[in-house]
Amino acid sequence: MKRRSFLAGAALVGQVPGLPVLAQTAGRAQLESKIVRLKLRHTWTTTMSSSEYRDTLHVSYRRDGLTGHGEGAPIVRYHEDAVSAGKAVESVRGLLLSAAPMQFAKVMAQVFQRVSGEWAGKAAIDIALMDWVGQKLKIPLYTYFGLDPKDTPLTTFSIGIDSPDITRQKTREAAEYPILKVKVGARKIDWLARQGVQFIEQPLPAEMIEETRWLRSRVGIPIIADEACQRASDIPKLKEAYDGVNVKLDKAGGMLEAYRMIQIAKALGMKTMLGCMISSSVSVTAAAHLSPLVDYADLDGNLLIANDPFRGVRVEKGKLILPDRPGLGLEQSGPASRK
Amino acid sequence: MKRRSFLAGAALVGQVPGLPVLAQTAGRAQLESKIVRLKLRHTWTTTMSSSEYRDTLHVSYRRDGLTGHGEGAPIVRYHEDAVSAGKAVESVRGLLLSAAPMQFAKVMAQVFQRVSGEWAGKAAIDIALMDWVGQKLKIPLYTYFGLDPKDTPLTTFSIGIDSPDITRQKTREAAEYPILKVKVGARKIDWLARQGVQFIEQPLPAEMIEETRWLRSRVGIPIIADEACQRASDIPKLKEAYDGVNVKLDKAGGMLEAYRMIQIAKALGMKTMLGCMISSSVSVTAAAHLSPLVDYADLDGNLLIANDPFRGVRVEKGKLILPDRPGLGLEQSGPASRK
Repeated sequence: MKRRSFLAGAALVGQVPGLPVLAQTAGRAQLESKIVRLKLRHTWTTTMSSSEYRDTLHVSYRRDGLTGHGEGAPIVRYHEDAVSAGKAVESVRGLLLSAAPMQFAKVMAQVFQRVSGEWAGKAAIDIALMDWVGQKLKIPLYTYFGLDPKDTPLTTFSIGIDSPDITRQKTREAAEYPILKVKVGARKIDWLARQGVQFIEQPLPAEMIEETRWLRSRVGIPIIADEACQRASDIPKLKEAYDGVNVKLDKAGGMLEAYRMIQIAKALGMKTMLGCMISSSVSVTAAAHLSPLVDYADLDGNLLIANDPFRGVRVEKGKLILPDRPGLGLEQSGPASRK
Repeated sequence: MKRRSFLAGAALVGQVPGLPVLAQTAGRAQLESKIVRLKLRHTWTTTMSSSEYRDTLHVSYRRDGLTGHGEGAPIVRYHEDAVSAGKAVESVRGLLLSAAPMQFAKVMAQVFQRVSGEWAGKAAIDIALMDWVGQKLKIPLYTYFGLDPKDTPLTTFSIGIDSPDITRQKTREAAEYPILKVKVGARKIDWLARQGVQFIEQPLPAEMIEETRWLRSRVGIPIIADEACQRASDIPKLKEAYDGVNVKLDKAGGMLEAYRMIQIAKALGMKTMLGCMISSSVSVTAAAHLSPLVDYADLDGNLLIANDPFRGVRVEKGKLILPDRPGLGLEQSGPASRK
């Protein structure tokens, strides 16, 4: 075959109606979703509940020899669980398998249009796509967002509610973390302010915006919205009652919406914080890649579990250390590193 | 030299104190700024002024054998001209030459901190950096933002104020554009609404927010903020008085801030529009790469000039056609294509 006719033939293959060129040249996409049971190091008690494990939804997206990993931790408040999250992912399987993954913003807009609620499921999809995109571009996701990995903040380490003895033991175990996050059942804000507390998160229920505004005018510590702030559109109306917002990928539905929330809060002059649910290194590392943008990080969800299937972001003396590998930069945990 | 000692030597070179490894291995950056006089095809008349040329500031950023191009059109309203824009760029020359360009979000945050005002100068820097980043990643900028180039909107074509005869001639020349933008001196909104007008831009001065709110309640056409909306932080307070915002790179200070503005407006449920000043294909193409995100585009600034130094976005029957080359995808205009 002459060079000229070969080229003409190749062009013809690319023009078969209805089949995009990329899909043919790049191979098919594969999607997997599964529920992973994460075992907690300590029984976890908050003002809301007590538990020994958490189920999160994991999604993997494979194409062109690359695998992107995503995870979402379902939040009961939004009427989600790992099963409903998995169903949400399966409901857009066809869309995801036929989509051009480099059009990730368009793809996620379509996912958001089709799936109502199920923020953890959406987060798992978004994170898997963005991990894949970073690997495809051969850059860590912090580079995709144009950030300096040295700018990560310190992360808090959370101490759940427990007996005084166990609390003392947990606090000793957390000696290397300069900032602790303490869940308190009663409210003693003035006393907390005198103990070096940096800020208070969601002191009143999300619905009580007026009361929070009153409280804010009476205390000298920044008040950060958690449950009151789920999506980007929530933020402008919170400005009067809160000093800042706690952005979580599981609430927002992934990295792209979390990025938008951080940008909106910053544009409004509010403090920004990245938080997480109890989850593996997949979700926590995804949040950590955005953390150079924020004032505070509470990204310890993976430190609280005993069977993390991945290694990603590390913590050294409280500072978040991002992996410099492409995408999220995850590595599978070897048997030796499992505990 | 044995392989091992060669590697050790190479590692040593990378560790000279104070010199970042990337700068040594990748070569030095170069920055150039210059004023380009753009000749208008027709004398341009608005309610504000009449002119035969416009000066814009062009920035080029070279590194690793790649050149990113940027442009900003100074806006008198913000007390800018091409000379002040050039001085603003020169004031951050040291920062830009020593910065890691893949940390573009951090770099632009530093530029915004150091330079007050001078949005056109900042836009020229931001666009040059992003053009370079896209070329470095070997992807068009629409792909960087995760968008589908087929989703570009139609662009309007602007007809300046003139005598009836010249206006008729201009309108004939614009026959291929399905949407025209007409600058009107007097206000006859009810009559306009009956003539198929899609929306009205900035009908009252930016300061008259209350009056615009009143006007909006009386007319059936969407009202879009132009001068009233400069930065991301302006948008939430405009929601009561306007249906949407016209985002321009020259007002915002570049693509990154324009992207944030579009996202904030969308999160607030507002219409979005990308506009431009009279400028070359550099600035207009940069805006066009974001246009798959917006409802309306008014990106005809390069069509109004006779000596465009670049070719980038094209218009076919009003539809914006994005180049699929890396970065902005610009090509130098050859002598034959100059008019």
